[in-house]
Amino acid sequence: MATQSNTQRVFNFSAGPAVLPMSVLEQAQAELICLPGAGASVLEISHRGAAFIEIMNSAVARLRDLLGISDEFEVLLLQGGSRLQFSMTAINLAPGAAAPPDYVITGTWGKKALEEAQKVCAPRVVWDGKPHNYSEAPDWSSLELNPQAAYAYITSNETIQGVQLPTDLDSPAPLVCDSSSDFLSRPVPMDKYGLLYACAQKNAGPAGVTVVIIRKDLMGRAPSDTPGYLDYRNHAEAESMYNTPPTFAIYLLDLVCKWLQQDVGGLANIERQNIDKANQVYTVIDESDGFYQGHAEKSCRSMMNATFRMANEQLDKQFIAEAREQGLDGLKGHRSVGGVRVSMYNAMPLEGISTLCQFMRDFMNRNG
Amino acid sequence: MATQSNTQRVFNFSAGPAVLPMSVLEQAQAELICLPGAGASVLEISHRGAAFIEIMNSAVARLRDLLGISDEFEVLLLQGGSRLQFSMTAINLAPGAAAPPDYVITGTWGKKALEEAQKVCAPRVVWDGKPHNYSEAPDWSSLELNPQAAYAYITSNETIQGVQLPTDLDSPAPLVCDSSSDFLSRPVPMDKYGLLYACAQKNAGPAGVTVVIIRKDLMGRAPSDTPGYLDYRNHAEAESMYNTPPTFAIYLLDLVCKWLQQDVGGLANIERQNIDKANQVYTVIDESDGFYQGHAEKSCRSMMNATFRMANEQLDKQFIAEAREQGLDGLKGHRSVGGVRVSMYNAMPLEGISTLCQFMRDFMNRNG
Repeated sequence: MATQSNTQRVFNFSAGPAVLPMSVLEQAQAELICLPGAGASVLEISHRGAAFIEIMNSAVARLRDLLGISDEFEVLLLQGGSRLQFSMTAINLAPGAAAPPDYVITGTWGKKALEEAQKVCAPRVVWDGKPHNYSEAPDWSSLELNPQAAYAYITSNETIQGVQLPTDLDSPAPLVCDSSSDFLSRPVPMDKYGLLYACAQKNAGPAGVTVVIIRKDLMGRAPSDTPGYLDYRNHAEAESMYNTPPTFAIYLLDLVCKWLQQDVGGLANIERQNIDKANQVYTVIDESDGFYQGHAEKSCRSMMNATFRMANEQLDKQFIAEAREQGLDGLKGHRSVGGVRVSMYNAMPLEGISTLCQFMRDFMNRNG
Repeated sequence: MATQSNTQRVFNFSAGPAVLPMSVLEQAQAELICLPGAGASVLEISHRGAAFIEIMNSAVARLRDLLGISDEFEVLLLQGGSRLQFSMTAINLAPGAAAPPDYVITGTWGKKALEEAQKVCAPRVVWDGKPHNYSEAPDWSSLELNPQAAYAYITSNETIQGVQLPTDLDSPAPLVCDSSSDFLSRPVPMDKYGLLYACAQKNAGPAGVTVVIIRKDLMGRAPSDTPGYLDYRNHAEAESMYNTPPTFAIYLLDLVCKWLQQDVGGLANIERQNIDKANQVYTVIDESDGFYQGHAEKSCRSMMNATFRMANEQLDKQFIAEAREQGLDGLKGHRSVGGVRVSMYNAMPLEGISTLCQFMRDFMNRNG
């Protein structure tokens, strides 16, 4: 970035925290000293005041509208990220069930969720992609899910491996889904889900707020000695004000949802854009004659995170460094797996993708 | 605020989230689209990238400098607010001790912390201010603290009641302190403390980040089935990157600490300013001949939150409404206790206090 000014924006392919819509950043900047009508910055106002309650209600209403969430569900805005949800899902949903939960493991985050559930109950692993290094998704019809299970757990998109479940599971037990890295990237048939959660810092906002959509009848099972913050009921009863919510993160979540509604025109539209963007990247990979080696099987390639590597680590490093020089940043794969990762969330503009694809072709021509 | 423009700032006496230094807001606004050198907004950059790691390290270093925190302590930046700390302190520190912890209850938040500890162990209440409606602080010398206790728990400032502990306790057991609402408002002799924590949204930043300062030897006692996010060790080992930290809140925490270091000149200076501001408000109360009735005993009146009421609720309401009309906002007492609360954190300018004091005198003259 030596040729760029100190405040020149790059194309940010970071896996999260990640790129936000420019119009959202501009509104946040314009209002940062004083939220219109509030007399103070949104960073400073009381969470109990009318101005913030309006923001909170707006964010929840927009989420309900975008995802078609019925009154059967609570929409909670929490702290602690997916890590805390790994524990909260098991603590709240496992007790009292006829059988322990079923876990489908398609990558790193599902595995970590399983480890937290193992502290609470005896989860059953019904599918594990480890033998092929987490590059596949299960054939749903081959799974033997227990209808008596407390719940069935899936990770809709594994950010590190770039493996996305291509279809929604019809689960006989309540379906729990970590949707952190593809939340709001496409429509979701919420009637198939019991609990769907996502930390915001991919498609929905900044780091620091986690959206939990939970069917109301699944609450109320947590033992009485559950830490207060970890019981969904407490948050539901207090309308996500069990304690001071992360107000600024919720304000940005609301702005991102407004952008999806008003500028993009809803989740079906953003899905079309995301498929188009992902197809461009995967086409370069598929036409590279093996120069770029995709990690995930084609049937479960992620629309959000394209992961690939080249012939050797040295070339991967060179790719990442040269890309950065050209204003294409955040392409380094997760430190646990290496390689290259192209995160192309909702707010990544088409121009970023075409610039990247051109770079990929050029790099291959120079080094292939 | 009818006479003010839509973006006119008021004096914001909110108890938290609360007023931030103007220079901090201005820098955050200027950098919101692009953090200099980072190529993206601080809201968008990876927590694993050099730019954010520099911010994180800077925030921790500034906290260490301001409070004189030695290497004996870890400084952790977490999510979940004080509510989660109510649980985490007990879960992490109670196990394995010869005796359960001792709790000193001086107001609402200490009571809630006790309730969470009761889920984990059998805490002993060594002092409870309830008989006098939480208007007092204990005489330390009268307490019979157990040297064998897992820890002794105090709340240095009770935000709702406006009761602040006037001196630091010399505890025979490790001292655990909820310092949420007076953190960074004065120097603290850290060698007297085992664990001191604070959510940021009073003096240290926005809602969404909680600072935990913990003596290293107090970690490692949590049971192996503790939810991963609730074990301090995990956060310490990962240098507060056990999961994605609330990056923007930490960025603002760093800016607030920089303001305290460079503009204010340290915690001794801010303490002098805070005493001066509080004295102005309490002088109006003391000279009001009972028109304003302070809640806390004089010996433990909070420098952060002055709580008082008038002859009847109607007058309280009128006071709050008229003050708001004059650009003095956020003065309503906590919904659980009513009355008036003047929160006068670090960033409340002297001008705000003098304007308020003048209003208080005028209001009394008109209604006394």
